[in-house]
This record gives sequence, C-alpha cells and structure tokens, in this order.
Amino acid sequence: MPETLTLYTAKVCPYAQRAEIALAEAKAPFTRYEIDLQNKPEWYAPKVNPASKVPAIAYGGPQVPPDQPSPESTKLAESLVLVEFIADLYPNANLLPADPVLRAKARFFIDGVSTKLVPAWHNFLQGKGSVEDLYKAVEYLQEQLPAEGGFAVGQYSIADIAITPFLARARVGLINELGAYPEGEGKKVWEALSSGQGRLARFGKYITDLLNRDSFKATFDEAYITERQKARYANARAQQ
Amino acid sequence: MPETLTLYTAKVCPYAQRAEIALAEAKAPFTRYEIDLQNKPEWYAPKVNPASKVPAIAYGGPQVPPDQPSPESTKLAESLVLVEFIADLYPNANLLPADPVLRAKARFFIDGVSTKLVPAWHNFLQGKGSVEDLYKAVEYLQEQLPAEGGFAVGQYSIADIAITPFLARARVGLINELGAYPEGEGKKVWEALSSGQGRLARFGKYITDLLNRDSFKATFDEAYITERQKARYANARAQQ
Repeated sequence: MPETLTLYTAKVCPYAQRAEIALAEAKAPFTRYEIDLQNKPEWYAPKVNPASKVPAIAYGGPQVPPDQPSPESTKLAESLVLVEFIADLYPNANLLPADPVLRAKARFFIDGVSTKLVPAWHNFLQGKGSVEDLYKAVEYLQEQLPAEGGFAVGQYSIADIAITPFLARARVGLINELGAYPEGEGKKVWEALSSGQGRLARFGKYITDLLNRDSFKATFDEAYITERQKARYANARAQQ
Repeated sequence: MPETLTLYTAKVCPYAQRAEIALAEAKAPFTRYEIDLQNKPEWYAPKVNPASKVPAIAYGGPQVPPDQPSPESTKLAESLVLVEFIADLYPNANLLPADPVLRAKARFFIDGVSTKLVPAWHNFLQGKGSVEDLYKAVEYLQEQLPAEGGFAVGQYSIADIAITPFLARARVGLINELGAYPEGEGKKVWEALSSGQGRLARFGKYITDLLNRDSFKATFDEAYITERQKARYANARAQQ
C-alpha cells in the first residue's frame, strides 16, 4: 500500500508532466503542488530538491501541508527516476511490460528521446539545428515502433510517457510558429511530423495515439502552455 | 528461463564492463565476444548495433557463432539499459532492491554518475577541469551513501555496477599519472578519493568495497587496462 505522496511540479515543464502522466495512469492519490519556476519558494531547494528543479516527490512521512515538507519524508527527483518509481509503486498500472526484452526496448526508446529527439528539437527551436536533423531523430525513434501499430513497445508504457510532453509542447510551438526557425516553417514541420503521410507516416500515427491518451489530456493545459510559449519566444527570431 | 545470450564487449570500455559485472553477479551463462574498438568487424554495426558501440547483447534466436549473428535474435544496446535488462532477466540476483524507494535511489545515484562524476572525471583527465570540480562530484555521490556503511543503497545493486568501471579506470590512470593534469597530482588525487580519510572518507570506504567485489575483479584486467591507458595518454601533457 503506497504511502502519502506529494508531487512538486510545474504545468509548463515537460519533465514534470512525465511524472503527472505516470500518476494519472496509475490512478494514484497524491497532492499536487505547483512550483513557480520563475519565482521558486525559498524552502524548495533546501527542503525538497537541492537541484531546485521539478519534478520532485516527497514520499511517506506524516501528513503535512506541501509547502511545509517534513524531514521525515523521502525526497526523490529526476523525471525518469520518478516515472520508474511510480511504475514500481503501482505494478497494476502496467507501465512496464512483464517481458524483460520489452522493458529493455522501452528504456532504449527513452534513451533515444533523451539523447536524440530532445536535443534535435531544442536546436531546431533555437534556430541552431536543421529540420533534417530533427527528422532524422524522429526517424530513429520511428524505426523502433511496432510496424503493426500500438505504442512504443506495444502496450502503453514509460517510453510513451517520456516522449509525450515534448511532442505536445513541440506541437504548440510549431502550429503557432514560435521559435527562431524561419516563420512559416512551423506549420509545415508539424504537418510532416503528424500527418501520417510521407517518410514519418508511422510516427504521425503514433503522435495521434499519444495525444489522444486520457492521462496526457488530463495533465496538459494547452491554453496555458500556448501563453507561456508566446511570452518566451516572442523575440526569438529578432534575437537570432 | 532466459534464452541464449551473447555479449559484445571490449575489456577497455567502462560501459561494457557494466554489463559484464551484471552478468557475473547473475551467474548468467553467456557467450563473450571481444570487439576490437580500433578495428571493428564490418558485420558489427549492420548486424548487431547500428551505433557501432559496445556493449550490446544478442538475445534469443538460434545458437550461432557470435561473429555470425542471427537476424532472429533481439539486439539490445546502451549499458544502463542492459544492466536493467540483466536485473530483470535474473531477479534472483537481487541487482535491485524490492523496495520502490530504494530502487529510485539506485537510479538517482546512477543519474549522478552519468551527469556529474563521469563528466568531471573526463574534464580532469583532459586537463580541462579542476580537481575541486572532481571532488565536488564525488561529494555529491558520497552524500547519498548510507552513513552506516554498505553499498550505494545498502545491498549491492545496479548503482554500484554503474560506477565501478569508472573508478577502476580512474585508479589506473591516477596511480600511473596518466592524463593531462599536472604530473604528480594523480597519486595525490587517488589518495584523497580512496584513503578513507578527510572530506571524502566515506567515499574511500565505498571504493574499497566496490573494488573488492568478486564480480568486478573477475571482469577487470588491470595489466591490459594499464597498457592501453599508457598508450592512449602517453602524450596527453605534451599536447596540452
């Protein structure tokens, strides 16, 4: 029986949304505490996460208000560690397949998200990387998807949780042309990624499945993310 | 019952040794195939690991010579993925504790090895980073060790497997003064890391425990590693 769990998170942060999706999949009871990343509470780093990042979890210990964390709870951090933690805590949520080979494939997919997709996306967003490099990173992941359909390793898993928040934020940026890439390119790139046509056809189908997942929809505030991205990238092209 | 397993590895590579230690801990039957990293066989990338790195595993499929890998086996790569795979395949080896909190702590420790210790060590080795930065990375991990002794999360686990090959190679480099740091500094740094005295005292005790582990000793060829490091870093100071 899992103990009391507080998630320190921020709606804007893709890493934090990974933990939120995992908790939603597990139907886990928890206390959600939004951290203002521009103005973090001064107790956050010393009492919850010395790295001062979200997401973080306070697990166990006495029932306390989330802004008065108890020294008796265990503090855990790093989004991928937390997603595995939630999978371990709620085995019935089946966030990892039982087969060791499929578990390895899920973790290998996540490695590709971290080391290929996210860097390629950030480079493109900042006008430093080519769209072709982005497509190559997507193709690298696409080749790992089951040809017959389904999620990264068939059933929904931690692999899908790891990628979804980045794709969702990329979508908002691209359809609103937010970023340092040439104006007009955003909508074209989103079309190429998500249409289910052309060289990224299989990946497009995968994106549709990911963004239709209830656990994603319940943890994504599109209007808010759009607003925040507009503020952040308003001058991205001018500053090139 | 696990299927047939071939490990593609290289004695020189710390990442590959992670997989070797995990297999030794699990007492897993497997075929070991040494890849010459300076002269990789031409079948290796197309038939085993497109990234052309070690370690990689071919799992399942028919019994075949390791230099003629079958398309029917599953190919897996990335050292941390493989260590988790071996832990999943051999649950009786107890490479992860049963408690989800301790499992999370093991994975968080590994994150610190990857993002803090390994970069700080490589910077120091190449004469680009200060010894103080290296000590800070070590202290970051030291703070996570149980005060009462034992391994990273108490029992021996994937966390210890992840760090050991790097510490073992650092030891060889430092006691032989191999690297671009000032001559004479190597032995001093190894003394600070491993003596069990001073600010890194707890970590020193941990190093001793790690390097005494049978699974490490059975998979580490010190004479060979020393030879290879001497060749590699012979001119490191001159090239500064």
